[in-house]
Amino acid sequence: MARSESRVRVVRVKAGERDARADVLAAEEPLEIRVNGRRLAVTMRTPTEDFSLAVGFLLSEGLIGAADEVHSVRYCGRDFGPGAEETDNTVDVVLRPGVQAPAPEMERQVLMSSACGLCGRTSIENVRTQSRFPVDGDPMQVTEAFVLQMPEVLRERQKVFDRTGGLHAAGLFNTATGELVTVREDVGRHNAVDKVLGWALLEGRLPLSGHALMVSGRASFELTQKAMMAGVSMLASVSAPSSLAVDLAREAGMTLAGFVRGDRFVIYAGEQRILPDSTGQLEAESAPETPAARR
Amino acid sequence: MARSESRVRVVRVKAGERDARADVLAAEEPLEIRVNGRRLAVTMRTPTEDFSLAVGFLLSEGLIGAADEVHSVRYCGRDFGPGAEETDNTVDVVLRPGVQAPAPEMERQVLMSSACGLCGRTSIENVRTQSRFPVDGDPMQVTEAFVLQMPEVLRERQKVFDRTGGLHAAGLFNTATGELVTVREDVGRHNAVDKVLGWALLEGRLPLSGHALMVSGRASFELTQKAMMAGVSMLASVSAPSSLAVDLAREAGMTLAGFVRGDRFVIYAGEQRILPDSTGQLEAESAPETPAARR
Repeated sequence: MARSESRVRVVRVKAGERDARADVLAAEEPLEIRVNGRRLAVTMRTPTEDFSLAVGFLLSEGLIGAADEVHSVRYCGRDFGPGAEETDNTVDVVLRPGVQAPAPEMERQVLMSSACGLCGRTSIENVRTQSRFPVDGDPMQVTEAFVLQMPEVLRERQKVFDRTGGLHAAGLFNTATGELVTVREDVGRHNAVDKVLGWALLEGRLPLSGHALMVSGRASFELTQKAMMAGVSMLASVSAPSSLAVDLAREAGMTLAGFVRGDRFVIYAGEQRILPDSTGQLEAESAPETPAARR
Repeated sequence: MARSESRVRVVRVKAGERDARADVLAAEEPLEIRVNGRRLAVTMRTPTEDFSLAVGFLLSEGLIGAADEVHSVRYCGRDFGPGAEETDNTVDVVLRPGVQAPAPEMERQVLMSSACGLCGRTSIENVRTQSRFPVDGDPMQVTEAFVLQMPEVLRERQKVFDRTGGLHAAGLFNTATGELVTVREDVGRHNAVDKVLGWALLEGRLPLSGHALMVSGRASFELTQKAMMAGVSMLASVSAPSSLAVDLAREAGMTLAGFVRGDRFVIYAGEQRILPDSTGQLEAESAPETPAARR
């Protein structure tokens, strides 16, 4: 059994009948991310692709932007406190000489931004300034049909979800070839995205212009920010975005689509990147609708 | 329009047709939680029930356990830095004299636990030790039918979700009367739970023995911990729990049900609190199933 899963005995209740059986759960364990030996963050994650996760997290935080800024990534033991022991839950990213390491006070800032996904309207400007890869000039375009097929393609590749039903996923699509480049899963949406983006960084694929990122669940400010830091100009989700995610996408010139389900979706920002399949025209404005109406 | 919502213009795509219209999003803004004037945490939340959220967060962190430990809760202005301005995004909880305030270094610990939902197996022991309200002795029992109706009852009371489709919810049920006592919604699952539990604390209802907490989405370690800190002995969710949530529930003697959908659900811990509706017997063990099979 993979470390990403955990087997437990459970009782299933169905139509008044009970049976005891083994069940598979998505594993959830803490990962401490260190940079040059110093703790930067702790995240609760599903133990797979830890190196990608750590590197992707550093990318999201604006610390690195290319593979050649990373000297090595390794697991290390906890070397402090009573009962210290070797563990696979601590990863150290060693930066190349010359690459600026995070200042000691950054740990606190990172912990805070992990808690709040970055804070408030001023941070929108910060994210835009901080990113090495502006997305507003990305001429990438996709068709409506391309958007509509992303959730299904992503779902087919979710291996752990099939067994546990409990994982979020993020998938990176090449919009030129239509290929689903990679998929990562995690108990945390933000971790799934960091795993995808960290993988891309280590593969030397940044910036990710010409790519779209599809995520399960909601599109929060934090996910939008992470996509932007890697130069992804289109984020799509099967559920609703938050208000701040929409604000950020609009200010940065990113395309944001939500409620991608069946034959429909909603464009919250960057409509110009999504081409109509047919001759469908932009209709006159109509009254506000409820989400129920669009599902 | 309530502060919990934000209106934006969007483009809806449906079967190749587009129309521009107003849409309502769930609002997402940072909330800084202070205790006795000192910052303790920042969370990204939907701006409603901020006082309950702040108090519930303090309860979850083990700082308070009763309403009479709180002197006052108020909004305060940001009083630091350039461009400082009054805001509704900072809440200060003033504790009664004699109630121990968090140590200065606790901010860092709280920020870290917010990031990771508490970390690792040693924290299971910490949570059990830290909680004032042990749940393992709660004799509460519910029927299977009671469990099965909780998601629908909760769903009917989700006001903001109906308009935005983008919010998590937590509902507190009195298992003796069957009443849905209160419902709270938020872009963050953990915030929705903190709002419910903080409300209960301010109402003088702790410990919440004899109550069940129903949450949308997954049951993570963090949510299980929060329920436990308020003395809730049963947590139910419509989706999967994580492995660490199950570990914690079992060690603490809590009942944990997941995948509550239609006529079925799965019991991960504390089966004795859920009574069969019929004469359904515990069947012989059978092979592991996939989640697909139980939906």
